[in-house]
Amino acid sequence: MPMIFETLVTTQCAAGVAHLAPMGVRYQGDEVVLMPFKPSTTLANILATRCAVLNLTDDVRVFAGCVTGRRDFATVALQDFPGCRLADTLGHVELELLRVDDDPLRPVLHMARAREVSHGAFRGFNRAQAAVIEGAVLVSRLGMLPRDKVEGEMAYLQIAIDKTAGPAELEAWGWLVEAVDRHHGGRSAAEAA
Amino acid sequence: MPMIFETLVTTQCAAGVAHLAPMGVRYQGDEVVLMPFKPSTTLANILATRCAVLNLTDDVRVFAGCVTGRRDFATVALQDFPGCRLADTLGHVELELLRVDDDPLRPVLHMARAREVSHGAFRGFNRAQAAVIEGAVLVSRLGMLPRDKVEGEMAYLQIAIDKTAGPAELEAWGWLVEAVDRHHGGRSAAEAA
Repeated sequence: MPMIFETLVTTQCAAGVAHLAPMGVRYQGDEVVLMPFKPSTTLANILATRCAVLNLTDDVRVFAGCVTGRRDFATVALQDFPGCRLADTLGHVELELLRVDDDPLRPVLHMARAREVSHGAFRGFNRAQAAVIEGAVLVSRLGMLPRDKVEGEMAYLQIAIDKTAGPAELEAWGWLVEAVDRHHGGRSAAEAA
Repeated sequence: MPMIFETLVTTQCAAGVAHLAPMGVRYQGDEVVLMPFKPSTTLANILATRCAVLNLTDDVRVFAGCVTGRRDFATVALQDFPGCRLADTLGHVELELLRVDDDPLRPVLHMARAREVSHGAFRGFNRAQAAVIEGAVLVSRLGMLPRDKVEGEMAYLQIAIDKTAGPAELEAWGWLVEAVDRHHGGRSAAEAA
């Protein structure tokens, strides 16, 4: 079973328009393995430019933002590499495409690490950050999941938010709660029953 | 509400015997704030030596190990500082006691950062690592929690383990499952009902 890490991938098209997407990645030896869906902007951009940037951030607003229609997070243009990184990230890795294992649904992109840069230290595990990641997964699957499952899991995750969140985690969590409420027509399951 | 990060704190007594303990810490400006329980070895050691080491590791075996009776994780003696750090940690911070706000239950120890050293890069969020952290919290509270709550939450956390764990996470999770089973006499709630 491959270990999966939740990251943010920034790419750009041939014309230079930047794109940001959350992505679960795998590490295989020195390679970073991406599996973007077909079709997707990330896949098209990497096939066009053969480049991508892996952002290793603990700012969970970016994960929650991407699944709730917010993608205007500050970026920094890279030197000597066609692309940008998130401004607020613990580190980034500049990636170059080595080879593609094609697939009808999710092609496997093997990427080499051209350069790795650290911008900040890991501060430890924060349970609220993990809850936002789980909540973002739920929100990205709202159309596929039964309402009582979503609401039960959000209520469970709320506990870690209440106990350990900082301002960024509270803001991210608020976006997710709003997205769940909007999807369910602004009414709770109990009210709708 | 203070943001809490789950870390491992290493201390030593005046005679030099090392001690390892999981601890939720807060960052206040440049200070690291520890709140060890009274009485505890960590508290006694810090009051005796005025030193501690904050280990920022993503090896969740250490968290799961500490709550299941395993504390023999490899450490490295520090130079010019009385203490050791975990061998496998993304970074460590050498801490010196600034002041104590005493409390009958949990004194608040304000620590200064004497030195910070990075040993590895943050790899991104891994949902299985977060599940192990949550599972370790559950196991540390087994005596206080109803059995059906523990088993329901473990079943929920198992999903992230199955989808995203690596070997270290699987080993840590196995220790937690074993501890829950042992606490419940080796029978599931369904069997016991």
